Amino acid sequence: MALNDESLQELKAELLDELAKEVPSKSVLSLRLAETRSADIGEVLEEMIEDDEELPAALALLDILSAERAANVLGYLPGESQLEVVGKLDDSQVLKLLEEMGSDERADLFNLLNEDRREALLRRMAHREREDLKRLASYEEGTAGAIMTSDYVSIASGMTVSQAMMRVRQTAPDAETVYQLYILDSDGQLIGTMSLRQLMVARPGAIVDDIMIKDVISTRVDSAQEDVARIVAKYDLLALPVIDADERMVGIVTHDDAMDVAESEATEDFHKGMSIGQLEDGVSRVKLWSLYRKRVFWLVLLVFANLFSGAGIAYFEETIAAQVALVFFLPLLIGSGGNAGAQAATLMVRGMATGDVGVKDWGKLLGRELLVAGSLGITMAIAVTPIGIMRGGEALAMVVALSMVTIVLFGSLLGMCLPFVLERFKVDPATASAPLVTTLIDASGVVIYFSIATLLLTGL
Amino acid sequence: MALNDESLQELKAELLDELAKEVPSKSVLSLRLAETRSADIGEVLEEMIEDDEELPAALALLDILSAERAANVLGYLPGESQLEVVGKLDDSQVLKLLEEMGSDERADLFNLLNEDRREALLRRMAHREREDLKRLASYEEGTAGAIMTSDYVSIASGMTVSQAMMRVRQTAPDAETVYQLYILDSDGQLIGTMSLRQLMVARPGAIVDDIMIKDVISTRVDSAQEDVARIVAKYDLLALPVIDADERMVGIVTHDDAMDVAESEATEDFHKGMSIGQLEDGVSRVKLWSLYRKRVFWLVLLVFANLFSGAGIAYFEETIAAQVALVFFLPLLIGSGGNAGAQAATLMVRGMATGDVGVKDWGKLLGRELLVAGSLGITMAIAVTPIGIMRGGEALAMVVALSMVTIVLFGSLLGMCLPFVLERFKVDPATASAPLVTTLIDASGVVIYFSIATLLLTGL
Repeated sequence: MALNDESLQELKAELLDELAKEVPSKSVLSLRLAETRSADIGEVLEEMIEDDEELPAALALLDILSAERAANVLGYLPGESQLEVVGKLDDSQVLKLLEEMGSDERADLFNLLNEDRREALLRRMAHREREDLKRLASYEEGTAGAIMTSDYVSIASGMTVSQAMMRVRQTAPDAETVYQLYILDSDGQLIGTMSLRQLMVARPGAIVDDIMIKDVISTRVDSAQEDVARIVAKYDLLALPVIDADERMVGIVTHDDAMDVAESEATEDFHKGMSIGQLEDGVSRVKLWSLYRKRVFWLVLLVFANLFSGAGIAYFEETIAAQVALVFFLPLLIGSGGNAGAQAATLMVRGMATGDVGVKDWGKLLGRELLVAGSLGITMAIAVTPIGIMRGGEALAMVVALSMVTIVLFGSLLGMCLPFVLERFKVDPATASAPLVTTLIDASGVVIYFSIATLLLTGL
Repeated sequence: MALNDESLQELKAELLDELAKEVPSKSVLSLRLAETRSADIGEVLEEMIEDDEELPAALALLDILSAERAANVLGYLPGESQLEVVGKLDDSQVLKLLEEMGSDERADLFNLLNEDRREALLRRMAHREREDLKRLASYEEGTAGAIMTSDYVSIASGMTVSQAMMRVRQTAPDAETVYQLYILDSDGQLIGTMSLRQLMVARPGAIVDDIMIKDVISTRVDSAQEDVARIVAKYDLLALPVIDADERMVGIVTHDDAMDVAESEATEDFHKGMSIGQLEDGVSRVKLWSLYRKRVFWLVLLVFANLFSGAGIAYFEETIAAQVALVFFLPLLIGSGGNAGAQAATLMVRGMATGDVGVKDWGKLLGRELLVAGSLGITMAIAVTPIGIMRGGEALAMVVALSMVTIVLFGSLLGMCLPFVLERFKVDPATASAPLVTTLIDASGVVIYFSIATLLLTGL
C-alpha cells in the first residue's frame, strides 16, 4: 500500500533510532530500506536533509543503499536537497550516482552544480557519456529538451519484428520505457513508432517499417514544457518523442514527467493568479528572501495603481462631504465588482490554460458574460437595496443599486476581456491576476459610484 | 504531428464541404478520417455537435466510422456532447457503441442517460455485460470506482511465466494496458503485480508468484479521485489497481485517466479560489443558468459580509467627517491588505493540494509568514508615505504608514491561517478563496485604519 504521512514519520523515527545506536545494525537498516519504495525513502530523506542535525543520518542511509537504488531515491528529491547531499560527497561518489541516474535527472542535477565541480566531473567521464550529458544539460529550462530523457528504445528501419524484439530485451535494463518503440532511419530521423503490444502480436518475420505507425506525434526540442504536457494528456501517450531542427530524434518525455510538469505549471498559474512570481521551490522550503521578492513586486505596483481610486475619491470630495453615508457602501460596491471581475478573469485564464477557451471564442464568450454578469449585478442590487433604504432612504438606495449593477457588469466584462487582450499582445493571460483585476475595478468602481451619486443626489 | 487549431479548422471545413455535396463521396471521407487521430476527430465533432446546423454532419461522420472507431472518438467528447449524439441514435446503434467503448467510458455515458433509456438498453444486454455495467455505473462520482476500468490483465496465482505471457496475448485486444499485470488468488484478491518488462525477461518455466512484487500499491474503490491522481503521480505508475472492501481487485485507473483527473481537480480548485462552484462542463459550454448559480452564491453572501466594512465606517463616521482626506487612502489600504492576504491563502491552499504543505507544518509556516508579511508591510508603508505627506501632511502619513504595516501583516496572517482552520474542521481549504479572504480583510482593515486615525489624529 501507499504510505501515509503517519507511517512515513514512523519509518523515519525507526531509522533515526537505529542510526543513533552505538553500533547501528546495517542489516536491520538494509532490510527496512529494501522493503520501502524509493519515492517514500525520498520523502523521509527530504525531511532529514532539511534538518542540519539529521543530515548525517540521511547520508548514512544513502551510503547503505546500492548506487542504483541511491540514484533512484535521489531522483525523487527536489533539486536543493540533491545539491545538499552531493555537496557532502567526493567526486568519485558523485560520478557513481550520476552514472546510475536517468539521463534527464542527471542533467538536472548537473545544471545545479557550480562550474568547478562540473568541470571536475566531466573530466572523469567517458567521451560518449560526457557529450550526452553536455547536450542534455544545454537545453533551456522549461523546454521539452530540459525534461526529456535519452534512454528510449530506438529500432533501425528495416529490422524484422524478431530483431526488434531482441533489441527491446537488450535495451530493457536502461530504457525509461520499453512499451513504445521508435523507428529511425540511417540519419537518425524519426520515421515511425509502434507499441510493444503491436510488436508482440506481429509476425516475427515482418519488417517493422511495414507495421509501424508513420504519422508520429512528436514535439520539437525547444517547445514549451506546458505544450508537451498538453499533447501527452490530449493523445493519452505513454511517451512523446522529441526531435531537433533536422527532425532527428533526440529523446522522449515520459507520461510521469509530463504529469509532474502539468502539476508544476498549474501551481505556477495558481501563484500568478495572485500576482506571485515563479517560486524556485515549494512554499515551505523556498528561501524567505525569494518569497518576499516574488510577492512584493506586484503588491507595491498595485499600491500605486490604487492611487487612482484615491484620486477618484479626491475628485468627488464635495459629494462625499455632503453625504458621508455614501462611504458606508464604498467597500461593498467596489468589493463586489472586484469579486465578480476576478471570477470572470479566472474562468478565462484557466480555460485558456486547459485549451478549453481559444482566442476565436472571444465573441461568443463576451455575449455569455454579458448575460451572466447582468443577472449577477441585478441579483446583488436587489440584495443591497433594503440596506440602502435603511441606511439612507430611497434616493441613496437607488444610487447604490444602480451602481451595483453597473460596477458588477463593468467589472465582469473587464475581468473577462483582460486575458484576451494580454494574449493578443503575447503576454501570459495569467497576468490578469485577481489583485490586478480588483485594483482596476476598485478605481473604476469609485468613479462609477460617485458619478451616479453626484448625478442623482445633487438634483434631489 | 499533433494538429494545431488552424489545421483542425481546415479539416472541419473540408469534411463539411464534402458532406454538403449532393452525393458526398464516402471513400474521400473515410480516407480523411482514417488518417486523423481519434482525439482530433473528437475535437472537430465537438464543435459540430454544439452547432445545431452542423449536428447532422457530425452524425453522418460517426456513421462512416467503424463502431470501434466511433466508440473511440466518442470517448474524447465531453459528456454533454455524447448525450447529444446518443439522443439521435436508436437503441441498437447505442448498444453497438457501448459494446466497443472502454468499460469506464461506457459507465460514464450510461450514467448520463435517463432511466427509461437505461432500462431499455440493459434489457438487451448479455447477463455478464449487464452486471459489469451496473456495477461500474453504481460508484459515486469523484471516487476511484467511477474512473476505473475493468479491462485489465489479471493472472491467476500459480501460473508459469509462459502461461502468463499467453494470457497477455489473449487479453491484449481488450485491455486498457497490458504493460502492468495483476496476480489474483482464487478469491480474486490482489496478491501481487509485475510489469510486462519483468515478465519478458523471466525464465519461461518460473512461477509468477515467485517473481511478482508482493507489496502492491493499490487504492480502495471509494477513495477520492484526487488521492488516486496523487498516488499515480507520486509513484510514477502506469496504472493503479483498485480493490473493494474485501481486498478483491475490481479495476485499474490508468495514467492517462489520472492525468485528466489531476487537470480537472486543478480547474475546480482554480474556480473555488474565486468562490465559483464546481461547473459540470467547460466555461464555454456550461449552461448559462448553471454558470450564474455557481457564481452568485458566494457573491451575494459576500455582499452581506461586506456590510461589516460598512458598519465599521458608520462607527467611525465622526472621524471621517472631521477629516474627509482619510477616505482617499481607504481603497488603497484595504486593497493592499486583501492582495497580500489572498497571496498568503493561495500559497497554503495550493501547497496543501499538492501535498507540499501539511497541517503539521503550520507552526513553521506561521513563523515564515510573520517575517515575510512584516517585510512586505514595511516596504508598502515606505512606498505610501510620500503620498501621505503630499495629501495630508506628516500626521496623516504616519497614520497611513502604520495602518499599512498592520493591515498587511494582519491580512497575511489571516489568509495564511484560514486554510488550516478550514482543514481542521474538515472543510475543503480551497474555500479560503480570494473573495472571502479579501472581504474579511476589508472589514478588519476599516476598523484598524480608522482606529489608528482616531487615536493619533484626535490628539493632534
